[in-house]
Amino acid sequence: MTDQLKNHILKFVTPPDNELQSFLNLMELEDIKNRDYLLKEGHYCKYQYFILKGCFRSFFIDRKGVEKVVNFGIEDWWLTNFDSFINQTISELNIQAAEDSKVLKISKSNLDHILRDSLELNRYFRIILEKVRIADQRRIQFMYNLSGEELYTVFNEHNPDFVQRVPQYMLASYLGFTPEFLSKIRRKKKQ
Amino acid sequence: MTDQLKNHILKFVTPPDNELQSFLNLMELEDIKNRDYLLKEGHYCKYQYFILKGCFRSFFIDRKGVEKVVNFGIEDWWLTNFDSFINQTISELNIQAAEDSKVLKISKSNLDHILRDSLELNRYFRIILEKVRIADQRRIQFMYNLSGEELYTVFNEHNPDFVQRVPQYMLASYLGFTPEFLSKIRRKKKQ
Repeated sequence: MTDQLKNHILKFVTPPDNELQSFLNLMELEDIKNRDYLLKEGHYCKYQYFILKGCFRSFFIDRKGVEKVVNFGIEDWWLTNFDSFINQTISELNIQAAEDSKVLKISKSNLDHILRDSLELNRYFRIILEKVRIADQRRIQFMYNLSGEELYTVFNEHNPDFVQRVPQYMLASYLGFTPEFLSKIRRKKKQ
Repeated sequence: MTDQLKNHILKFVTPPDNELQSFLNLMELEDIKNRDYLLKEGHYCKYQYFILKGCFRSFFIDRKGVEKVVNFGIEDWWLTNFDSFINQTISELNIQAAEDSKVLKISKSNLDHILRDSLELNRYFRIILEKVRIADQRRIQFMYNLSGEELYTVFNEHNPDFVQRVPQYMLASYLGFTPEFLSKIRRKKKQ
């Protein structure tokens, strides 16, 4: 099951075999049923997760009691609540499976341990974080600049398979509008 | 001039002296006058910048012709447009000084060179990026969850000195509302 992660790492860096194997040995496999949680608000986020199969969303409940989706994750993505994971603070976010899923997880102490000595794995996580930063920056720019319909069009262009997989109400929440508005846009696109 | 960066690095990691010195030797000093640009949209972002003194904002012009501030940077922050710097794409963002400022900059080829072999500097940039990720996530959550007035209160709590330094219209743009609305909130707070 760790071959998928191994291949992902080797796309970006080339750690010595023993280093890579030590890292993979620290990963624990977990099966998650659709709608089960990796993390619930009010708890500490103890792991970083690498998604082998399935789909997750992270969300919080706003003060009006409405779910707000802030992130999605699918195969070959890393997922965590960094604020809670790094700073050991209580999580305001939930991470929930949107399909039956499978993840590899690593605890903070094990990750810290491996990152103390591995040049290539530090490089790997740095490169991943640069990509995340780029995505976050684009997202913030889009939130400032695009109408709901344009937001959907751009998101669709960048993630066509993904849009088909995720329930409509989750996608609507992520893009910041109502499911009804999303249905309207989708109907318009099909015409 | 590189002592300030050296001290910042040593807060997080402990590279061997020769590694640290090689890195610092690659940094170039640049003085920037208030309102001058480190990066203009339509150009490639060739550097990562470490701010020694002063204040910068990155912004884009939205389709209505309005400036939208997406980031600020002050002393001891790293600043770049990652999308353009990493992917060598044309920048949609501008980075402009908001005060007379001083930066150290490093080119992509020099940074790639040093990060090929240095465990501790990879650790350093990974740790910085984790902090950036946490800030971006909080920002996205705030944008979804807070009213203009609350946004200002939270931002003020987290960055009291900063709020005094930055021109009001820039701060308003960053927080997503008009300068008039910001003046109104400030007046209310003083009562």
